[in-house]
Amino acid sequence: MASKPAASETGDPLLLTPGPLTTSRTVKDVMVHDWGSRDQKFIDINQAVRDEIVKIAGGTGTHVLVPMQGSGTFAVEAMITSFLPRDGKMLILVNGAYGQRCAKICDYNDRAYVTYETPEDTPPNVDEIGRILDADEGISHVFAVHCETTSGIVNPIKEIASMVKAKGRSLLVDSMSAFGAMPIDAGEVYYDALAASSNKCLEGVPGMGFVVCRESALAGTKGNANALVLDLFDQWKAMEANKQWRFTPPIHVIVSLHQAIQEFLEEGGQPGRGGRYANNCKVLVDGMRAMGFETLLPDHLQAPIIITFHKPSDPNFHFETFYNALAEKGYLIYPGKLTVADSFRIGCIGRLDEGHMEGALGAIRDVLTEMNVTNCAPAQAAE
Amino acid sequence: MASKPAASETGDPLLLTPGPLTTSRTVKDVMVHDWGSRDQKFIDINQAVRDEIVKIAGGTGTHVLVPMQGSGTFAVEAMITSFLPRDGKMLILVNGAYGQRCAKICDYNDRAYVTYETPEDTPPNVDEIGRILDADEGISHVFAVHCETTSGIVNPIKEIASMVKAKGRSLLVDSMSAFGAMPIDAGEVYYDALAASSNKCLEGVPGMGFVVCRESALAGTKGNANALVLDLFDQWKAMEANKQWRFTPPIHVIVSLHQAIQEFLEEGGQPGRGGRYANNCKVLVDGMRAMGFETLLPDHLQAPIIITFHKPSDPNFHFETFYNALAEKGYLIYPGKLTVADSFRIGCIGRLDEGHMEGALGAIRDVLTEMNVTNCAPAQAAE
Repeated sequence: MASKPAASETGDPLLLTPGPLTTSRTVKDVMVHDWGSRDQKFIDINQAVRDEIVKIAGGTGTHVLVPMQGSGTFAVEAMITSFLPRDGKMLILVNGAYGQRCAKICDYNDRAYVTYETPEDTPPNVDEIGRILDADEGISHVFAVHCETTSGIVNPIKEIASMVKAKGRSLLVDSMSAFGAMPIDAGEVYYDALAASSNKCLEGVPGMGFVVCRESALAGTKGNANALVLDLFDQWKAMEANKQWRFTPPIHVIVSLHQAIQEFLEEGGQPGRGGRYANNCKVLVDGMRAMGFETLLPDHLQAPIIITFHKPSDPNFHFETFYNALAEKGYLIYPGKLTVADSFRIGCIGRLDEGHMEGALGAIRDVLTEMNVTNCAPAQAAE
Repeated sequence: MASKPAASETGDPLLLTPGPLTTSRTVKDVMVHDWGSRDQKFIDINQAVRDEIVKIAGGTGTHVLVPMQGSGTFAVEAMITSFLPRDGKMLILVNGAYGQRCAKICDYNDRAYVTYETPEDTPPNVDEIGRILDADEGISHVFAVHCETTSGIVNPIKEIASMVKAKGRSLLVDSMSAFGAMPIDAGEVYYDALAASSNKCLEGVPGMGFVVCRESALAGTKGNANALVLDLFDQWKAMEANKQWRFTPPIHVIVSLHQAIQEFLEEGGQPGRGGRYANNCKVLVDGMRAMGFETLLPDHLQAPIIITFHKPSDPNFHFETFYNALAEKGYLIYPGKLTVADSFRIGCIGRLDEGHMEGALGAIRDVLTEMNVTNCAPAQAAE
């Protein structure tokens, strides 16, 4: 390489993925300490994190935060198995891997469910949800993914929530990759529980998930869970009793998330954070389109989180070569592939700005030249 | 305070607890970076951690490591529900909170069990275990806690393992607070699975557990687990397939554990680490006895992890005052209390040496003087 690779404040490659993300130096620096998990200093930080996330969610006074060790999926499985009673039934809205994962979780935990599946580039039809609920009175809960990281599609969560509420059912939301970046105010979007994690748009490090719970709904979940560690009710009651975690907390992750939340608030909260990401997304998409690439999704369905691009038709394009060459230039794009469309994905969240996206575009242009790729249009034009 | 409080390399209070612990500065410093969870650099670190822990366990060639997001209890629940089939039955050896927690996990997960309970200061009788197994052919597995953090007692794990093997049953071990510090070589102690965590005697930060599994036994566990995230078989198979985690790994915790393992090996592995802890324990116990304190356990049952002292009979001794005054001097002892004996606990593990223990003893002497406590003997002499 002629030029020095791009690097974050700490000299690391820039992560253009759906998370774990590039985080700020200060978010990581606060981890260089030890805390007692049952000492007041840590207990205060933990409580501040809980209160602040509820405030970000717009749920102060009505909602409570139950953090969960592990990852986002731990929070999702805890949410599903704690909120859906053993004799309940879930309608799962599926248009990607995270909707499918909910079905898998229901299989594991012996919970009844039906799915309403649409293609990866298609949001569910809200009227159809209403018809499904009318036709099956046994359905007690609906599970929806806010932004499906699979494709980057944003689902109409507000309209879904209104329909579910109108039909008298309970809504569980996986807002993993959207929470903090896209609007979902608990005062406007009626849900019983919403799961997200430390290492997405709040820009903390990975190691925990959390569930924003409507307190009145959570109060009715005692005895539902069928795994001790995933019992949100027990986790909540124990934490309310003495403000401590039942089992060893990921202390450094929590302290780091506390710092990340301060930086989130300094950026202007969701509008500020989401605005930066939207600009990152626009710069990236515009630049890629100028090279001839096409996005899987039309702009109105595109969440400013991760963008799926069709694979170029040029026979010289090989994804692994492309990935590795970009990595050498300091940009790690998402190495996973979609099951349906022949495509690749680039994230635009984390401690990245317009300049980083321009840098990534420059690196992509250079790599395509090195690979002798001239035609970036997909084999078949996107519909 | 006349003198400056004691502090670790990073200026934090010293943690005299059973974990999370005081860790080295270098173990924390490596967290000040970002990694892609699906990028080769992190994948290599993760694989090294897995291989090294199996080697430390003495299981190279016969055992594999399955890491688990969360905490030690997540690893224990994953171990129990993945290894104990739904039609299996567990004999749980109980002499403290962690044996009891296994019973709670079996209740949650609808697994049959019986308990053999001894007092908190009494190890199980190994012949009695044999009699219980002879009398109930339905018992397929035995669950034993290596060192019960409740009291600090070390259970005769080698003899238990021999008896369980002789009776043709399978052993699951919770070695959470002992692994790395006390000998438990997989070549000498026959078990199907052993659970421990990042933040105990390996001196990493909290955020994950792990299970050392006999590969031949793990291979037979498909379909046993009843929670997706806690399915060790699936976690293992997926990680073997592409060396990646199924769900977001606690990257910083893993990279930190990798560094902690290098420092563990530099200290001479288990003999070196365990030797330092044994010396810490001896210095602490000798010093406390010189002040008149008495330990709950006789020396031959005392693990060099955490020590339970009887509460002094002096009416001026109040635990909360004692805890807070020690905290002001830079020493955080364990704030939890035993259910049975009127006592308090002090840990001696983590990045602490003889000098730190002497410092703690000096602080304890000063605090007792400030509290005007003169009689440190318990109300009733320990038997």
